[in-house]
Amino acid sequence: MLKLFYAPGTCALAVHIALHEANAAHEVARLDFANSQQRSAEYLAINPKGRVPALVTDRGVLTETPALLVYVAQQFPEARLAPLDDPFALARLQEFNSYLASTVHVAHAHGRRAGRWADEPEAIAAMQRKVPQTMTECFEVIEQHYLQGPWVLGEHYSVADAYLFTIAGWLKSDGVDIATFPKVAAHFERVAARPAVQRALA
Amino acid sequence: MLKLFYAPGTCALAVHIALHEANAAHEVARLDFANSQQRSAEYLAINPKGRVPALVTDRGVLTETPALLVYVAQQFPEARLAPLDDPFALARLQEFNSYLASTVHVAHAHGRRAGRWADEPEAIAAMQRKVPQTMTECFEVIEQHYLQGPWVLGEHYSVADAYLFTIAGWLKSDGVDIATFPKVAAHFERVAARPAVQRALA
Repeated sequence: MLKLFYAPGTCALAVHIALHEANAAHEVARLDFANSQQRSAEYLAINPKGRVPALVTDRGVLTETPALLVYVAQQFPEARLAPLDDPFALARLQEFNSYLASTVHVAHAHGRRAGRWADEPEAIAAMQRKVPQTMTECFEVIEQHYLQGPWVLGEHYSVADAYLFTIAGWLKSDGVDIATFPKVAAHFERVAARPAVQRALA
Repeated sequence: MLKLFYAPGTCALAVHIALHEANAAHEVARLDFANSQQRSAEYLAINPKGRVPALVTDRGVLTETPALLVYVAQQFPEARLAPLDDPFALARLQEFNSYLASTVHVAHAHGRRAGRWADEPEAIAAMQRKVPQTMTECFEVIEQHYLQGPWVLGEHYSVADAYLFTIAGWLKSDGVDIATFPKVAAHFERVAARPAVQRALA
């Protein structure tokens, strides 16, 4: 059975939602980030990067949210969580997920995890101060150019919606009012109302 | 015909290599980053994120390196640039590419583009100082856990090799000696010797 290592408030939620959308048999293992359990020897043997999510499959451990989202969609094609038969449409989904992972999530991480990129407290504080600006810029791009509506890719729900929902849920703690972005705000409520999302959050 | 917008020394090289490996008919358009051409109104109409690579296709513009790499592999399956018939193996490829995009490339960017994440010159200098350390940590992970050899995924060359080659090529300018990582260094030479790579670099 698939086993998802996660921590509350992290991007692992997107994969957890995808598993529920797919009705995939799975179990979850919660890591205690407050006690740095993700850096324990036991967990580093599972994921040497010391991050979540990690998904244990019968062929080995997989990591990285964009990879896991497409993997879940491919393993459970009947759930129709990605446009698997259309390389251009799949590239659109991947483009969106990759932007979330390598630009938006990174902007957010400069608030909580700035010590990854500098040691001096003043530098860390400077990075934290800029997070509302960078997150606002990222969500302007999403609002104006990438969120087609009603779902990210248009008429069909996909794993990209779970991922956007997860990261949009961080805006408040980043000092940004989601209401600044009406399409994103409506999308957030639309995703939150899905039964699979409620099950993942429970 | 496909048209790739790129700039020298950027991750667009990985996509350019993939196009040559696929023998894909394509043209290239070079942006002058020294004059901030990527922020020109003309280019922002193509890619509102103001970054490279961007690939113009007959169905629209696609961006983000991990998305483009799998797209090229899917559009030219005879080139066998990704394990398209095996979701687990494809997830392994995507996991690697996603790590490069959202962790390794981001670590590197704190040297050249630290102003994305803080405004104060002291904070920018602090980020730049840490780049050799963070890039070393990233390549330790690659060397010890992810580069299977002789290619990233083992016996078969894939788009992940072009991407690793591209980012490993930045180590010297990041103050890191590639010889610290014997498997990565040997992989770099192996990729550099490929005719398609020489054509892309020409």
